[in-house]
Amino acid sequence: MIPSFNFTRIPQIIFGPGKLANLYSLISQYGKSVLIVVGASSLKKSGKLDEIQKTLKDKMINFQFIDVNGEPSPSMVDEVAQKYRNKNIDLVIGIGGGSVTDAGKAISAMIPKLDSIINYLEGVGTKIHDGQKIPYIAIPTTSGTGSEATKNAVISEIGPAGFKKSLRHDNLIPDVAIVDPELMISCPPSVSAACGMDAFTQLLESYVSSKANPITDALAYSGMTYIKDALIPACSNQSSNIKIRSSMAYGSLISGMTLANAGLGIIHGLASPIGANFIIPHGVVCGTILAEATKMNIKMLQKMGSEGKISLKKYADIGALLSDEPLNTKTNLSVNLSTLIKTLENWTYILHLERLSKYGISYNDINKIVEKAELKNNPVKLDKKDMIEILENRI
Amino acid sequence: MIPSFNFTRIPQIIFGPGKLANLYSLISQYGKSVLIVVGASSLKKSGKLDEIQKTLKDKMINFQFIDVNGEPSPSMVDEVAQKYRNKNIDLVIGIGGGSVTDAGKAISAMIPKLDSIINYLEGVGTKIHDGQKIPYIAIPTTSGTGSEATKNAVISEIGPAGFKKSLRHDNLIPDVAIVDPELMISCPPSVSAACGMDAFTQLLESYVSSKANPITDALAYSGMTYIKDALIPACSNQSSNIKIRSSMAYGSLISGMTLANAGLGIIHGLASPIGANFIIPHGVVCGTILAEATKMNIKMLQKMGSEGKISLKKYADIGALLSDEPLNTKTNLSVNLSTLIKTLENWTYILHLERLSKYGISYNDINKIVEKAELKNNPVKLDKKDMIEILENRI
Repeated sequence: MIPSFNFTRIPQIIFGPGKLANLYSLISQYGKSVLIVVGASSLKKSGKLDEIQKTLKDKMINFQFIDVNGEPSPSMVDEVAQKYRNKNIDLVIGIGGGSVTDAGKAISAMIPKLDSIINYLEGVGTKIHDGQKIPYIAIPTTSGTGSEATKNAVISEIGPAGFKKSLRHDNLIPDVAIVDPELMISCPPSVSAACGMDAFTQLLESYVSSKANPITDALAYSGMTYIKDALIPACSNQSSNIKIRSSMAYGSLISGMTLANAGLGIIHGLASPIGANFIIPHGVVCGTILAEATKMNIKMLQKMGSEGKISLKKYADIGALLSDEPLNTKTNLSVNLSTLIKTLENWTYILHLERLSKYGISYNDINKIVEKAELKNNPVKLDKKDMIEILENRI
Repeated sequence: MIPSFNFTRIPQIIFGPGKLANLYSLISQYGKSVLIVVGASSLKKSGKLDEIQKTLKDKMINFQFIDVNGEPSPSMVDEVAQKYRNKNIDLVIGIGGGSVTDAGKAISAMIPKLDSIINYLEGVGTKIHDGQKIPYIAIPTTSGTGSEATKNAVISEIGPAGFKKSLRHDNLIPDVAIVDPELMISCPPSVSAACGMDAFTQLLESYVSSKANPITDALAYSGMTYIKDALIPACSNQSSNIKIRSSMAYGSLISGMTLANAGLGIIHGLASPIGANFIIPHGVVCGTILAEATKMNIKMLQKMGSEGKISLKKYADIGALLSDEPLNTKTNLSVNLSTLIKTLENWTYILHLERLSKYGISYNDINKIVEKAELKNNPVKLDKKDMIEILENRI
């Protein structure tokens, strides 16, 4: 029986190498005054940003660039939103990694408001955002967060009293996502690895999510089909191969669509407090605990007996997908489950995803992290001691 | 290599038995004055329409019912649009089969205009619709056209100078689709059969379409996975089984999403001129020629040699899906292709899909039909004589 489900809208998607060129005709549909949020990224080094700037000038489009360094903080979003509140901005564009596309999303949503984003953050503020925003186009330059297709912007306050929380509304899904794999070619191997592992984590967590539905299942499976063969090459000897980058860009885009509709699990539930308290890239957190958390989920599902069977079967299907015999589900369930775990461990090793201790996280920090962790839509209930075990194995 | 592709927005989807109840809180998001387009359907007989009417009154919502009989004609749409043009309608709702949901879509798009829909129909008028419309919620009561997720409304002028053409714009995709399988339970077997074959045809044609992309592939495959086991039961001894109706409703919804983004093929290319010149339900046309047209496509793809391989493989994948060994793709390609054709022929027979002659179409009409047929995004080029052969075999 298909479970009841809601599926939010998705952005208009323009996918393919060179499709950035479509931006200019799109802008004219919205107006003449554009705010462009960019990162301190490889986009500048590659000369792409100069090219964009020149074309905008030629086309007589008024534009302002906003530089974003690192994950967007409440004060950064507030400052930009206030500065441009009465400037008749017709369109916001975010070109960059997940932090940049999230920053653009948050700015587009906060320009029409009069107060701080703090008031609207889940679990922090008391107000609910009404979805009113300036139209927003997201253009990712990494294959990671899928932010170009999600309805939330992650805002971070880093430090002892830090948090990592979302501004969320169905209407914050970008109006358009231009996914141009050419923009990802200059992404360095370590960033490609962390982002790629984040995308795969998002796909796997939404695939086994307690809120999954047939649409998210079909899409997540499709996303993993493309990522599985492209992840390692994209981070090594084929980083300039447009076919490989296209597969990663597709998987990442899809991961945004599936997480927006099926939610995530314990890996992202642990990643929030870790990211709020330590300076560690989000993709690295996800990537480094992916195999351990998956192992724990499978162990606990196996203990559940018949109730855990559906989720175990889903994990096994992905194990089969990752093996050399993707369609041979006749193989023993446990063989496929162990293939899944081994492959994830192997990726973690090959892609040099560092242990948490490398980022200053010690055994003493684990309790505090687990205290703030959320299960989200994890397919199985985990106790605090299970979460502690996951983290201890990756310290 | 993933081909470049665009994917339009999809409606906000609310799926599940009993979800019609969500309509009332949704209406309040749009306003207080609602135009409700309904058909001469089983919805009335089942008492559901009285129930809706009572709830709307209780909630003090102003509403007007518009009755649609048969496929919407230009004059019907013009008349309704004119009548309600200055009545401050906040929302249009279409509850019914494909004709009704298409009529609602067209009315919502024509209320803001001042002239006839004729001017905006593809291949008939000279104007292009700009997408401006009254917000629109589509609620299907059959599992067939997937109109609740498409960007076009099919408008029919039946007769010797007749046509069957689309009003089309990305923005005409309904704002919300409420897909409640309970509304389909009262759908009679012959309608369920014709609609179900239409939905499957749309999924198969968009799956093998020359414009297919990984998203439409994943979705179409998922849709066919659900329809394959539900089609026959939904039209026979399990027509009241909500699980079966949910599978059909899901497949139909998905078929709208895939056809809106990947397009269709020769079956729909032939169905347009047939539907324009003869009184025959659209689903019956698709259903009755589905097996023959698929056989012809496969024959012509086989003649192409290596160029036809990708599409043949896709047809074979669906043959494997329809067989008892869905995941055994190791089987010979030709075995799977023949399973596909045999299953489609079998469905046509079991579901009593009549031959075209039953609707007054004779050998003498074939040339005229083929003259006006379009290949659309068929995976292989067909000559006029190939199309004639398809139709001759179903006269």
